[in-house]
Amino acid sequence: MAKMLLENQESFLIPAERVAHIQMTNRLDHALLVLTKIGYNVIPVLDTEYKLRGLISMPMIIDAITGIENLNFDKLGDIRVEEVMQTDFPVIDNPYELEEVLHLLVRYSFVCVASDDGSFTGIVTRSEILKATNRIAHEFENKYEVKRKIECV
Amino acid sequence: MAKMLLENQESFLIPAERVAHIQMTNRLDHALLVLTKIGYNVIPVLDTEYKLRGLISMPMIIDAITGIENLNFDKLGDIRVEEVMQTDFPVIDNPYELEEVLHLLVRYSFVCVASDDGSFTGIVTRSEILKATNRIAHEFENKYEVKRKIECV
Repeated sequence: MAKMLLENQESFLIPAERVAHIQMTNRLDHALLVLTKIGYNVIPVLDTEYKLRGLISMPMIIDAITGIENLNFDKLGDIRVEEVMQTDFPVIDNPYELEEVLHLLVRYSFVCVASDDGSFTGIVTRSEILKATNRIAHEFENKYEVKRKIECV
Repeated sequence: MAKMLLENQESFLIPAERVAHIQMTNRLDHALLVLTKIGYNVIPVLDTEYKLRGLISMPMIIDAITGIENLNFDKLGDIRVEEVMQTDFPVIDNPYELEEVLHLLVRYSFVCVASDDGSFTGIVTRSEILKATNRIAHEFENKYEVKRKIECV
C-alpha cells in the first residue's frame, strides 16, 4: 500500500499558488479576516520574498488579545502577525519522504513543503491523503491478490 | 486494507466524554474562549440532554460579528451559539460504515457519531484514521503476500 501511495505522491502537494497565506507584517485584524473568509484554522506566514516563516491560527490570534478578564479587541490592529505566529513547526523538503509526512499528519492538519532556500513550495494535507487512500482501497482488490503469510488459528 | 482498517474500527471513535462541546444557549464569547483554549477550529454543539444539535467554528463566530466596515465585538456577548451554528452536517450511526466515514473525512476534519435518539456518541477524526493507516502500512508487508493479478507491461 505504501508503494501505491508513493505512485500518487506528486498529486498530494497543493502548490503554493493555490494556498492562502499571510504576510509577517500584516496586523492581526487582517489575519483574522483572511482566516474567517477561507474558513481554515491555520495558514502559512510568508515574508516579502515568499519564504516560509511561520504559521498563524485563530486560537493564536484570540490568545494574543486575551487579557485577565476579557478580550482586548482594540489590540488586533496593533499587533503584527510575526509577533504571535508559531515558528517551531515541521517543514519538509521536496521531494519528501511520504512515510515521514504520514507520521506528521497524525499531529498536524497539514505539513509545509519548502525548498532548500526556504521558498514556500506548498502543503500536503490530511484531506488529500485520505482522498488517495479511498481511491487506492477501491483499486487494491481489483489489482492485487492478498494472502496471509501465516494463518491465524 | 479495508478489512484491516475494519479490524481497528472500534479504536477510531473518540467517545463523547473526551470531546469538548458547547451548549446551544451559550453566548459566542464563551464559545470563542473554549475554541481558543482547546485550539480546535470546530466543535459539536449539544442541548441540555446531550443531544447533538450542531457544529460551531471560529469562522462562524467571527463571520456573525462582521459588519460592513469592521468587526462588532460587542455583539459576542449577545448572540447565542444556536443562532449561528451549522445544523446541516453529516451524522452517522454507531456501528458505522467505515467506507462512508472515509469519504466524509475528505471534506470534514471529523465526523460526528450519534445514536438513534440523537444522543452524542463521539467523533471519528482524520487524525485517528491516519494513525491507523500508518500502523497498518507497517504491519501489512509482514503479514500478507501481495501479488499483482494482471502484470502491467
